[in-house]
Amino acid sequence: MPDAVLVVNSGSSSIKLALFDIASDGEPRLLCRGSLDEHEVEPRLTIKETDGAILYDRHRKVADRHGEELLLDALNWVDGYLASDDLIAVGHRVVHGGLAFATPVRLTGSIVNELEKLTLMAPLHQPRCLSPIRAIMTERPELPQVACFDTAFHHSLPASATRFAIPRQIHDTGIRRYGFHGLSFEFIAGRLQELSPSAGEKRCVVAHLGSGASLCAMRDGASIDTTMGFTPLDGLVMATRCGAIDPGVLLYLQQQRGMSATDLEDLLYRDSGLLGVSGLSGDIRALLASESPYASEAIDLFVDSIARQSAMMVNSLHGLDCLIFTGGIGEHAQEIRRRVCEQLSWLGLALDADANKAGSACISTRDSSIEIRIIPTNEELVIARHCVRNLAECGSDSA
Amino acid sequence: MPDAVLVVNSGSSSIKLALFDIASDGEPRLLCRGSLDEHEVEPRLTIKETDGAILYDRHRKVADRHGEELLLDALNWVDGYLASDDLIAVGHRVVHGGLAFATPVRLTGSIVNELEKLTLMAPLHQPRCLSPIRAIMTERPELPQVACFDTAFHHSLPASATRFAIPRQIHDTGIRRYGFHGLSFEFIAGRLQELSPSAGEKRCVVAHLGSGASLCAMRDGASIDTTMGFTPLDGLVMATRCGAIDPGVLLYLQQQRGMSATDLEDLLYRDSGLLGVSGLSGDIRALLASESPYASEAIDLFVDSIARQSAMMVNSLHGLDCLIFTGGIGEHAQEIRRRVCEQLSWLGLALDADANKAGSACISTRDSSIEIRIIPTNEELVIARHCVRNLAECGSDSA
Repeated sequence: MPDAVLVVNSGSSSIKLALFDIASDGEPRLLCRGSLDEHEVEPRLTIKETDGAILYDRHRKVADRHGEELLLDALNWVDGYLASDDLIAVGHRVVHGGLAFATPVRLTGSIVNELEKLTLMAPLHQPRCLSPIRAIMTERPELPQVACFDTAFHHSLPASATRFAIPRQIHDTGIRRYGFHGLSFEFIAGRLQELSPSAGEKRCVVAHLGSGASLCAMRDGASIDTTMGFTPLDGLVMATRCGAIDPGVLLYLQQQRGMSATDLEDLLYRDSGLLGVSGLSGDIRALLASESPYASEAIDLFVDSIARQSAMMVNSLHGLDCLIFTGGIGEHAQEIRRRVCEQLSWLGLALDADANKAGSACISTRDSSIEIRIIPTNEELVIARHCVRNLAECGSDSA
Repeated sequence: MPDAVLVVNSGSSSIKLALFDIASDGEPRLLCRGSLDEHEVEPRLTIKETDGAILYDRHRKVADRHGEELLLDALNWVDGYLASDDLIAVGHRVVHGGLAFATPVRLTGSIVNELEKLTLMAPLHQPRCLSPIRAIMTERPELPQVACFDTAFHHSLPASATRFAIPRQIHDTGIRRYGFHGLSFEFIAGRLQELSPSAGEKRCVVAHLGSGASLCAMRDGASIDTTMGFTPLDGLVMATRCGAIDPGVLLYLQQQRGMSATDLEDLLYRDSGLLGVSGLSGDIRALLASESPYASEAIDLFVDSIARQSAMMVNSLHGLDCLIFTGGIGEHAQEIRRRVCEQLSWLGLALDADANKAGSACISTRDSSIEIRIIPTNEELVIARHCVRNLAECGSDSA
């Protein structure tokens, strides 16, 4: 059996695992996938072969907050599944790389400490990314681990797109727009290039719509604008995050209602968005199935925020050639795609209703001046590729 | 001499006075105008006749923070200028009317107390509006005073444009988008209707650009979207305000840097925007005249914010027929207009360079698919008209 790489993708409400073997040309090939969905009442980690056969299925214990125990258990299972010495690295999605980390990096204790300092920039995410890294580092210190950053793809942003209108001395300490979901956008940029070399050169808006959601304006395959900023709180309405909001609201809630910064963090990261508006759920599937007017209101706001902010991205691109939907909602919620496209029809795009219902790769009509596509994202593959490259560049035993 | 109305327009960095006599058809006609500009080193109130002749000219004393003393002095001067019993009302621009005040209102002590409660929603503005009202109420209790609200014009916003994605119980306490600069937008809507009845029906983006700045998306003369939200802090980059910013920045500065809500208020309302980015001035005239790269960066961000957010407004209108510049910067800074139009050229608008330099009423080329106009705003006239209407409806002696 050839070398293998395990990818751990800790998102805001899920952990995804993917195990790849590495073909002789260096390209990772998926062996099996696992996932743990926090939306479920009793979260469990299930690993399946590519044909759907269940290989591993365990409940997460209540005390196992970030799933470290379950992950170490799964890692032991991987050893058995592969035959002991084939796992050459674990690759991780790490949400925030700050100013320092613009490319994937081999993890050491001191680098993890550096990354921990960025927790306040991504309080919902950064601890969930770092806990499994620390657990594996303790249990398997010899196993190389590589961090791939959601912020890295956006290091191509022009300076003006990174700048808040705050005093220079504060900006210079790193309070700027970073952008997130970079691994997903990097995958989409690569897929566009594969689909046709000219597609990669187009002016594209990529809508990554999941529990977290953001847009990326891409020109020539590079990010030139994005809706998330310093933290993953800004931009689109999300499952439990508010997205763009008047900063005066935060000041008011503190000065007038006596809320602390921690109260506000809970409110805006965990109790807002689709969940806060509907009062029912942060899961768009539940809201689409609901007849509550509050569910409709939440969906309206979500769609509005995507259309409004898409228009901003189109402005940065000075026009639009291609709109791409990806992420759980982008790939599977045809009703959301339909309504976003309806709102954006003034731009000249026309949705093919049947293709959209069928979830086809291309969902625009033949005479639409703008191409509309669904491209399933694959952050895990991007991470596995970075692992392979990192090991090739740095060697597999130098941590 | 017929009845007269004095208008007091207290903005974030200036006080403007305007004295109108009321023609027999009820239309106010300007007699003289005064202004006090806080940007000046030694602020003074100067009142001029319409031909420019100086009628009144006094320094503001340092201790007279909101200019009450100077205003009462000017009020006494007005009595002499008019002949004692002709002043029938004072009309005020009041920035925030909250949920309760959707139309102009005759001021009483208890209403002023109500309005004072809204101070935390507009800390830079509301006290500056209310101080002169209280001073006149004390000195001249018999003189009717009418408040006209910057938020009122936006009561036509569709529900979705007023909603932040926060929990319902917080939204229901009035934490929503209100929008500001409504008196200016109301004037522009009226002027468009006068220019041509069909112009009023067009899809218009009105850019009110001054020390404070916001955009309004107008359809059929009514506001359907705007860039300012709960407070006048959100939206465009302004003289000293940050405009739209990731809410995560506020949480971080508190949790990581130990800033208080009051520190943040100072930072984001008073030390940010053009001033914060340039480190030089919040006055666009000074920045346009400067050769500092920091001044250029501030101007770039200002222009970017106008173009980006105009695209959002165009999305709400599902297209654009007319772009209108107003406010001090909108009316006088041809370089800013030129650069905004350049960035928005993808929408199909084409600026006539000569007409723009000349500051003509219409500054688009003949073949531009979108009309571009400069319309000098006149908030004071709108306020005077509301005063006349209010007195006609309520009588001049019932406070």
